[in-house]
Amino acid sequence: MKATQYEGNKTFSVVERDIEAPKEGEVRIKVAYVGVCGTDVHIYHGMMDKRVKMPETIGHEMSGVIDAVGNGVTGFKVGEKVVVRPLDDRLVQTSDKGFNHICEKLKFIGIDSPGAMQQYWNVPAFTLHKLKENTDLKLAALIEPLSVAAHDVRLSGLVKGETAVVLGGGPIGLLVAMVAKEVGAQVIISEVNPKRIAKAKELGFDAVSPLEVDLVEYVKDKTENRRADVVFEVAGVVPALDIMCEVAGIRGRIVMVAIHGQKKEVDLFKFFWKELKLIGARVYEKEDYEKAIQLITANKLPFEQMITDVQPLTKIQTVFENIDKNPEGLKVLMDCQA
Amino acid sequence: MKATQYEGNKTFSVVERDIEAPKEGEVRIKVAYVGVCGTDVHIYHGMMDKRVKMPETIGHEMSGVIDAVGNGVTGFKVGEKVVVRPLDDRLVQTSDKGFNHICEKLKFIGIDSPGAMQQYWNVPAFTLHKLKENTDLKLAALIEPLSVAAHDVRLSGLVKGETAVVLGGGPIGLLVAMVAKEVGAQVIISEVNPKRIAKAKELGFDAVSPLEVDLVEYVKDKTENRRADVVFEVAGVVPALDIMCEVAGIRGRIVMVAIHGQKKEVDLFKFFWKELKLIGARVYEKEDYEKAIQLITANKLPFEQMITDVQPLTKIQTVFENIDKNPEGLKVLMDCQA
Repeated sequence: MKATQYEGNKTFSVVERDIEAPKEGEVRIKVAYVGVCGTDVHIYHGMMDKRVKMPETIGHEMSGVIDAVGNGVTGFKVGEKVVVRPLDDRLVQTSDKGFNHICEKLKFIGIDSPGAMQQYWNVPAFTLHKLKENTDLKLAALIEPLSVAAHDVRLSGLVKGETAVVLGGGPIGLLVAMVAKEVGAQVIISEVNPKRIAKAKELGFDAVSPLEVDLVEYVKDKTENRRADVVFEVAGVVPALDIMCEVAGIRGRIVMVAIHGQKKEVDLFKFFWKELKLIGARVYEKEDYEKAIQLITANKLPFEQMITDVQPLTKIQTVFENIDKNPEGLKVLMDCQA
Repeated sequence: MKATQYEGNKTFSVVERDIEAPKEGEVRIKVAYVGVCGTDVHIYHGMMDKRVKMPETIGHEMSGVIDAVGNGVTGFKVGEKVVVRPLDDRLVQTSDKGFNHICEKLKFIGIDSPGAMQQYWNVPAFTLHKLKENTDLKLAALIEPLSVAAHDVRLSGLVKGETAVVLGGGPIGLLVAMVAKEVGAQVIISEVNPKRIAKAKELGFDAVSPLEVDLVEYVKDKTENRRADVVFEVAGVVPALDIMCEVAGIRGRIVMVAIHGQKKEVDLFKFFWKELKLIGARVYEKEDYEKAIQLITANKLPFEQMITDVQPLTKIQTVFENIDKNPEGLKVLMDCQA
């Protein structure tokens, strides 16, 4: 079978490898599609070389079909469509208080252990979520990032009739916006890149540039001065940290989706004054996967338009190079069987 | 009657004034005791001269007895013991979403309008909470700051069996610690001032200096590595902002009680990584006052030890000067009838 490997130095190789039998408790998946995550791009840029063993097969946004079932695995059979929730929580401790998805010794499959960018992938059966037979496997490769969005929206407590402002209109921002809209909220996307604004509008969203309009006034106009009930900070830039505190109304909830690697200045006075809440949100829990699967199965949101390119797995080097050249692209999938 | 006035320039005057009849909807209170709040000290230092009209009678932590009832006031009669919840929310708007206690146009009585540091005080009847006949009016002057603590603890969602770390062992920190202990939580106070540590221990608390022990390790030892479920940031200093993110365990809730006037650096990565929550908390709601009244009435917590000095109202200038000289003091009351 064909497998890809991150070799360091912005280089992927494509190698031939034996198809291995699944070990006890594992299944082997014939991988259908694998999406490229922002984290994969970080790895490609060498920013995670301390964490990723090289050479390593990466990738964790995927869909596939069960190809073989190891000893001790029950409830799964060959031919079933599945996705993997790539969290290995086997080292969970009582001090993690039951929050297995972010437990201290969590291993992320596809970063800390081999990932999905290969034709066949052996994974522990406890990571699997079953799909319906008629599920489109291209769309199913969006389930992992969509689960991130479902988690963010669930932790925000957003309800019908509220207003959500999404800061950042990249792939995760758009998925958060979709889940928020599905909840029944009014959604406003703030994004500086004109191409991404155009894309967000094409997907049916109210999207504006905070460089062109006064975002706070814009949101006040749309909410009878209530401002946002929920703000999703998905931009990861300093101006977003200022604007999130401004655009949030009284008792507003701000979900921190972006990863801020360095300490940043925050207007804590506004947290006090308006009794704002900041809610950290990371990956997903089982129920978020189930929600994402339900949304993909229903297929009533513009998921297809999120997929801006599909390439054969063997083109992996070009795929990552092109992502660098085209930062406006949304989700790029690789077809692992092409 | 005697009234005091803040004149600016670190100066209070004591003046003779006529006792006025309460207006429609008001009651006149014969003020018993008035406590000095940190905010009053800020005013004395001139830090709120833009907001406070001068000369002005300040003060809002008080207890007293109804002395006269204005037209249109029902449910109150002369001789009843009361405290005032000094929030004038008459300019509330729908955009405040029902959060009257922090509404955009809130007026704080005793800052934005005349306060309690006088012998008789006329206030709108809607600000009153009744006390039981046998309530100690000295202790009752603690109800306002104790309501702040009750609000902070309520918003934290702290429950029995959890561990709370209180950063800062001043008056509000100690009251937060008391309310947290009353909930049934394990409470650890972090404080740098040795005199305040000694006082906290005298009040029965586990109190340590983060300059002498590694606070995170200390809390891990006391929680089987779970760290804090709730952190109250009452210190208002930069090191507290770093330690709050460290000492909080997975999904820990951090309540921002301190007022950080400038933007400060926060480790947002830890919010993401551990799914922390930051909860802004300001003043109190009706139910927090009721909780504080219940605690003062029961008098099972070491409230008496919180009162470190009682002086006649006429000594107001010396009282404020001495607070500056003795920052370790806890609550100073002025006896308005002495």
